[in-house]
Amino acid sequence: MKWTAEEIAGLERFYRGNLINSVTGFKSLNLLGSISSDGKFNLAVFTQVMHLGANPPLLGILFRPVVPGMHSLKNIRETGALTLNHVLVGEEEMAHWTSARWEESEFDAVGFEPELLEAYPAPFVKGARVKMGLRAEQEIPLEINGTTMLIARLQYLEVPDDCLQPDGFADLLKAGTVAGLGLDGYVSGSELRRFTYARTSERPGLI
Amino acid sequence: MKWTAEEIAGLERFYRGNLINSVTGFKSLNLLGSISSDGKFNLAVFTQVMHLGANPPLLGILFRPVVPGMHSLKNIRETGALTLNHVLVGEEEMAHWTSARWEESEFDAVGFEPELLEAYPAPFVKGARVKMGLRAEQEIPLEINGTTMLIARLQYLEVPDDCLQPDGFADLLKAGTVAGLGLDGYVSGSELRRFTYARTSERPGLI
Repeated sequence: MKWTAEEIAGLERFYRGNLINSVTGFKSLNLLGSISSDGKFNLAVFTQVMHLGANPPLLGILFRPVVPGMHSLKNIRETGALTLNHVLVGEEEMAHWTSARWEESEFDAVGFEPELLEAYPAPFVKGARVKMGLRAEQEIPLEINGTTMLIARLQYLEVPDDCLQPDGFADLLKAGTVAGLGLDGYVSGSELRRFTYARTSERPGLI
Repeated sequence: MKWTAEEIAGLERFYRGNLINSVTGFKSLNLLGSISSDGKFNLAVFTQVMHLGANPPLLGILFRPVVPGMHSLKNIRETGALTLNHVLVGEEEMAHWTSARWEESEFDAVGFEPELLEAYPAPFVKGARVKMGLRAEQEIPLEINGTTMLIARLQYLEVPDDCLQPDGFADLLKAGTVAGLGLDGYVSGSELRRFTYARTSERPGLI
């Protein structure tokens, strides 16, 4: 199928949502943990997470326009702290369920156990294999569609030993991390291939 | 392994680069096609592509600080036009090779064939199954690390019929799209699971 800009604009709303959210590609899938100023834990599934840089270690996280019942960004504004926890193969359904409009904490509602580490003041997901503690650095409002890009700095990182390669590369297939696709798709990876540094003088080889 | 902010800052540069680029998760993997004002085609592999919204259909693309020899952002500034072409299973090595510092066009150097469509004024990758033509809308300089977020609007979209589900969801595993991981990792997916809209009243089910 082919669509022009006008045809995309004319698509039925849910069809367009599914289409555009999926063709934009595989996504980093995370459970975002936060805590309100009065101590209530929040957990929400996020796919709009982007690598911004390694030094300093920065991530970008896109938040949709805030509506009542959405607590993550509100909590982060209050405390400055958040965690990202990779979703494991087999936990896709529970992760997806955090996106329902819960009154209570999603930890209790869905059945993830919060874990507080001395190293960082926001709740992690107990059992998650890749865990990141982050501090909010800057909000960038995207006026073009009312979303907000949060720039956050990595303060704490946990990666299982068995998926860490000697050069620092974390093999997320070995870690059991799932990728996101579209609004409701969860993808298991099967094969990882790494290539040598690209030079014009020779084809890259497998690492 | 566990790292604090101080320990991350103290890591050897390449180790930190591999580590942070991989723990930030699976990435949307694309070949970005552009054309200079004097008609030279450019092709570069990109993983920092983010879904910003479906209506209007917007993507965010992160560009590292421009150094001599990097042409994509320069071309886009000149013409306003770019394409994103999903990388296919089996073409990972060629895609990776576009990141070498070629003097000539990466299309010629690496062996991808450019394709010009009447519908859009920038070169696509011939044979790519998911193709997007985009118009640059806005540049957001991220002063915190010197990168640039380009906001681009979808003007043309092509998705193979056989991977399009009735509700608009594009099954990228069926399309043969590869995901990115870290600076040099390419991942094939094996299994896609979709779940029903999340409600508090019942567990989500498989679609």
